[in-house]
Amino acid sequence: MCRWLAYSGTPILLDTILYKPEHSLIDQSLHSRLGVETTNGDGFGIGWYGDGMKTPGVFRDIGPAWSNRNLRELADHIRSPLFFAHIRATTGTAVQQTNCHPFRHGRWMWMHNGAIAEFHRTRRDLALAVDPQLFLDMEGSTDSEMMFYLALTFGLEDDPPGAVARMAGFVERVGHEHGVEYPLQMTVAVTEGRRMWAFRYSSQKQSRSLFYSTRVQALRQLHPDLGFLQEVSDETRLIVSEPLGDLPGAWNEVPESTYGVVEDGDDEMHTFTPQAA
Amino acid sequence: MCRWLAYSGTPILLDTILYKPEHSLIDQSLHSRLGVETTNGDGFGIGWYGDGMKTPGVFRDIGPAWSNRNLRELADHIRSPLFFAHIRATTGTAVQQTNCHPFRHGRWMWMHNGAIAEFHRTRRDLALAVDPQLFLDMEGSTDSEMMFYLALTFGLEDDPPGAVARMAGFVERVGHEHGVEYPLQMTVAVTEGRRMWAFRYSSQKQSRSLFYSTRVQALRQLHPDLGFLQEVSDETRLIVSEPLGDLPGAWNEVPESTYGVVEDGDDEMHTFTPQAA
Amino acid sequence: MCRWLAYSGTPILLDTILYKPEHSLIDQSLHSRLGVETTNGDGFGIGWYGDGMKTPGVFRDIGPAWSNRNLRELADHIRSPLFFAHIRATTGTAVQQTNCHPFRHGRWMWMHNGAIAEFHRTRRDLALAVDPQLFLDMEGSTDSEMMFYLALTFGLEDDPPGAVARMAGFVERVGHEHGVEYPLQMTVAVTEGRRMWAFRYSSQKQSRSLFYSTRVQALRQLHPDLGFLQEVSDETRLIVSEPLGDLPGAWNEVPESTYGVVEDGDDEMHTFTPQAA
Amino acid sequence: MCRWLAYSGTPILLDTILYKPEHSLIDQSLHSRLGVETTNGDGFGIGWYGDGMKTPGVFRDIGPAWSNRNLRELADHIRSPLFFAHIRATTGTAVQQTNCHPFRHGRWMWMHNGAIAEFHRTRRDLALAVDPQLFLDMEGSTDSEMMFYLALTFGLEDDPPGAVARMAGFVERVGHEHGVEYPLQMTVAVTEGRRMWAFRYSSQKQSRSLFYSTRVQALRQLHPDLGFLQEVSDETRLIVSEPLGDLPGAWNEVPESTYGVVEDGDDEMHTFTPQAA
Repeated sequence: MCRWLAYSGTPILLDTILYKPEHSLIDQSLHSRLGVETTNGDGFGIGWYGDGMKTPGVFRDIGPAWSNRNLRELADHIRSPLFFAHIRATTGTAVQQTNCHPFRHGRWMWMHNGAIAEFHRTRRDLALAVDPQLFLDMEGSTDSEMMFYLALTFGLEDDPPGAVARMAGFVERVGHEHGVEYPLQMTVAVTEGRRMWAFRYSSQKQSRSLFYSTRVQALRQLHPDLGFLQEVSDETRLIVSEPLGDLPGAWNEVPESTYGVVEDGDDEMHTFTPQAA
Repeated sequence: MCRWLAYSGTPILLDTILYKPEHSLIDQSLHSRLGVETTNGDGFGIGWYGDGMKTPGVFRDIGPAWSNRNLRELADHIRSPLFFAHIRATTGTAVQQTNCHPFRHGRWMWMHNGAIAEFHRTRRDLALAVDPQLFLDMEGSTDSEMMFYLALTFGLEDDPPGAVARMAGFVERVGHEHGVEYPLQMTVAVTEGRRMWAFRYSSQKQSRSLFYSTRVQALRQLHPDLGFLQEVSDETRLIVSEPLGDLPGAWNEVPESTYGVVEDGDDEMHTFTPQAA
Repeated sequence: MCRWLAYSGTPILLDTILYKPEHSLIDQSLHSRLGVETTNGDGFGIGWYGDGMKTPGVFRDIGPAWSNRNLRELADHIRSPLFFAHIRATTGTAVQQTNCHPFRHGRWMWMHNGAIAEFHRTRRDLALAVDPQLFLDMEGSTDSEMMFYLALTFGLEDDPPGAVARMAGFVERVGHEHGVEYPLQMTVAVTEGRRMWAFRYSSQKQSRSLFYSTRVQALRQLHPDLGFLQEVSDETRLIVSEPLGDLPGAWNEVPESTYGVVEDGDDEMHTFTPQAA
Repeated sequence: MCRWLAYSGTPILLDTILYKPEHSLIDQSLHSRLGVETTNGDGFGIGWYGDGMKTPGVFRDIGPAWSNRNLRELADHIRSPLFFAHIRATTGTAVQQTNCHPFRHGRWMWMHNGAIAEFHRTRRDLALAVDPQLFLDMEGSTDSEMMFYLALTFGLEDDPPGAVARMAGFVERVGHEHGVEYPLQMTVAVTEGRRMWAFRYSSQKQSRSLFYSTRVQALRQLHPDLGFLQEVSDETRLIVSEPLGDLPGAWNEVPESTYGVVEDGDDEMHTFTPQAA
C-alpha cells in the first residue's frame, strides 16, 4: 500500500509540508503508523502547479523518498499553491518510474492508496474497457494507473465524482465476474490544478485511513501560538493518508464511503456510491 | 534500435565475448557502426544458462552498459555455455528494467532489434491477441515484449520458427489494417537453453544487420595462430548484430528473410516467410 | 546501521540463505529485530567466491534489497561455498554504489555494521594514515571503507586479527584526540576466500549484536527432521548480525570484545583488544 | 570529458536553452561535435537560482541526460535568471550522484570540463591542502570537486579569479612534483548567483573549447527576425562548451588562457595565469 498527501492553499515551499512536520510524509516512508506496511520505500513522486504552468510538473523516482537528495532539493526550492506527494509500497508490480504516483494526463493528476484485489485476474478485462485513444498513453503496470485511465474513459474531466463512481462500479463488476468478493480498496486524490477531489471507499467498507485538516480559522483559535497558521490563508487545506502530527483538533477522519471537494468557498463532503459504467 | 549477441558453445567467461573483442558489444554501446544509432545507452541485459539451472539467470539494468560495474563483475565471474546479451536504444518507450532484453518465460529467452512501426497505433489490438493467461506476465511496454508474447501465444514452445512466422504475419496484418505500410522490422534471437533460433526479417525487406560466425574448424585453418580458437569446441557459434572485430573470414551476413537454427550437429538456415496466425 | 551475514561451507545457492529463512536478511531489510533501525534500505551488496575465481564477484546496488530483482536473480542462479551479504542503513553518508558493502581489495572482502562516531571530525586524520598507494583505491565516503583501508595499511593480508586490532586502536586514539568518548562501534567480517574472521567490539563495550551458528553435527542431533542439515557439511558455518529464525539451539551470541576464526578444522574464538598502530 | 552551459539574463524556462536549440546540451549528450568524446552519458546536473532562494537548487542524477524524464519535467516547469547545466563523460571515477556537476557550497556553484592529469597520483597531496573544515563537505571522488574545494580553500568567495589562479598554480606544482608534464586541463564556470566567472586554461595551452554568446543588441541587428532575441534583455548571456547552433555571428570563442566575468554592465575578459598558492 502507500501513503499520500494533497495540499491546496497559500503558496508554500514544499519542504514545509513534506519534511518539516513531526510525522511528515518522509517520516511515514520509514515509520507509517496507520498503513498496512510500516515502510513505504518502493518509489515516490510529487506533482505541483505554479504560475503560468499549463501542466503540473511531476518528479517521480524509484527508491525510497527518505534518502532521495533530489526530492530534498526540490522541496527546498519549489513553491506551489497546490501539490500532491505520494510514497509507494508496491503490492507486487514492478518498482519503476512509470508505476510511481502521481499520474498525469494533461492538466489532471491522480494518486491512489489501496489496490484492485487480484488485479492479475482482471487486468486484461479492465484494460479492454479503456478508451483506445487513452490506452496509448498508459505506460506502467499498476492497478492505480488503470483506475485513472478508466476514470478518464468514464468522463473524469467533465464530472470527476461521477467518473470515479463509474470506475469503481466497473471495477467491482469485473471483479465479481471473476469471483473476487471485495474487488476495490481505495483512497484517491484527483485535481486539475484548481479544485481537488478526495475519495475514500472500499468494497468491504473497511477503507484505508484518510484525514482532512481542520479549517484554518478554527485552528488559529485553538492554537493562537502557531505562527504557521497566521501565514496561510483561510482556504488552505490538507488531505492526508495519516495525520502529519499530533496537534489536537487539527485532523478529521474522512468517513467511510465519502468524497470531498476542496474548492473556493466552503468545501463539501458527499456520500460515495459506485455506479454502473 | 539496439544491438545484441547470442553465444553457444564451450562454456566461457562472459567477459571473453562481452568485453574482450576489439569491437565488443560494450564498445558497440558507445560506437555502433552498423546500427541506426551510434549510441545504445538506454539499458541492457544478459541472460545465461548453467549447470543445474532450471531457468536462465537474467540481469537487466537501466543506464548504459559501458559504465555498469555490476555487468563488469558478472562478466568477470560467470561462465556459461549459452548466453544472450543486449544493449538498448529506445524508440520511445520508457527506460525501465521491465523494458530491457532479454525477456524470459520459463526456460525461454527472447531478444529483439528493430521495431513494430507506429506501435502506439497497433499496441492495443496486438495486446488483445495475447493469450489471456500469458497477458498477466507482461510487465513492460515495448513492442519487443509484445512480439515475444504473441509468439508464445502462437506456439513458440512447440514450433519456434512457425510461431515466429505467425507472429510476424499477425503483426503485419494488424499493421496493414491500421494503414502502416511496413509494419515489422526485426532481428530476433530465441532459445530454450539448448538450441538457438535467429531471425532476420522486415516488411520492407531492408532488415537490420545480422551476422553469424564462421565454423570454428574453418576459422582454425584460416587463423592457426589464434589461441582462442584452440580452446573452444567445433560447435561454438556466435550470432551478432554486428561483427565483434575485423578478423578476415570470421563473419557471415545472415541473408534477408532468413532464419537459422544453432543446435548439435550441423546448423541450418532457412527462408523466413510470415504466415497467417 | 546495517545487517550482514557470512556463509562458509558446502556450496549452496545463495537463495537458500538470503531469501528462504523465515527471518532472512531480505526480511531484515524491512523488519530488523535487533538493529538500531528496523529498516535497512539504503543499498546492499553480495560478494561470492567460486571455482577458479581469482577474486570474489561483487554485486552492489543502491536502493532496498527487498525489491531488487537482480539480487533475486543472482541468488537464484549463483552457487558458492563462501559468500558475504550486507544490507545498509546509512548513518549519513551518500547512498551510492561505492558506499555499499562488501568492499573488495584483491582477494579480500570486508563488511561492517556500526560506525566511527563523529566520523566527519576524524575522517581527514584517518585518511592521512592510509598507505598512499592504497589511498588511490578508496572510492567511497564511508567510515566502513576507511576502516578496511586502515586495516590493509596495518597488515590485514598478513595478520588479520592483529591488523584489525591496530585499526581499532588507531581509530580510538584519533577519536580521543578529537574529544570523542566512544569512537568505535563495529561488527566486522573479513575473508580471503578460505578463512573468515568476525569481530565484535565497541569502545563503549555495548556492541551491535552478532551470532554464529551451532556446529552442524550438534544441530543434526537436535533436529534430526531438518533435511537441510543432512545436505551440508560438518564445517558449514554462518555468522550473522541477527538470527535467521527461531530454531532452538541454532544460534549463539558472539561475546563482547571477541573475534572468531572460521577455517578448516575447529573454529576458534579469542578476546579482541585494540592495539597501538 | 564533459560539456556544460551557463546562462544569465532574463528569467526563462530551462527548456528554452536545454532542449529547444538545434544543437542543445541534450543533443550534445549524444552527439557532441567538439568534445573529446561524442557521448556524454555518465550523469548530469542542473543548478538554478530563483526568487527568494538562499541557495541554488541542484538536481543531479546518474545515467544519460537524453532519456531522463525528471530533467525534462524540471526544464518544462522551472524558470530561472541564472542557471548551470552539465553533462558528464567520466574519465574513470565512479558514475554516482556525488560526482555529478554542478557542485555547490553555500550560495556558490562550480562546474568543470577537463581533468587533472594522472589524478590518482596527486589526489592525496591535493586533498591534504584542502582546508580541514571544508574537507568534511567533500563527498565525491572527482578531480573537479577537488578543484572546487581547493579554490574555496584559496579564497574563492572573496576573490574568484585569484582563488582559481592559485588553485591552478597549486595543481600544476603538485603535478610537476609527481612528474606530470601537463597537470591541468580546464574550462570552469563558477557563480554566487549574481555574477558568473568562466575560465579557459590548460597547462599545455591546448584547452577544451569554450564560447560566449554575442551581445543581444548586436544579435538583434544581425537577426531582426528572431523573436527570441526580442524577449530577452540586453544583459542576457550564455557561456557554453560548444555552440548551441549555427546562427551566424552568435558565438565567439573564449581565447586560450583567458577568463571572463559576466555581471551588470559590460562584461570583462582577462588573461588567466596560474599563481603560487
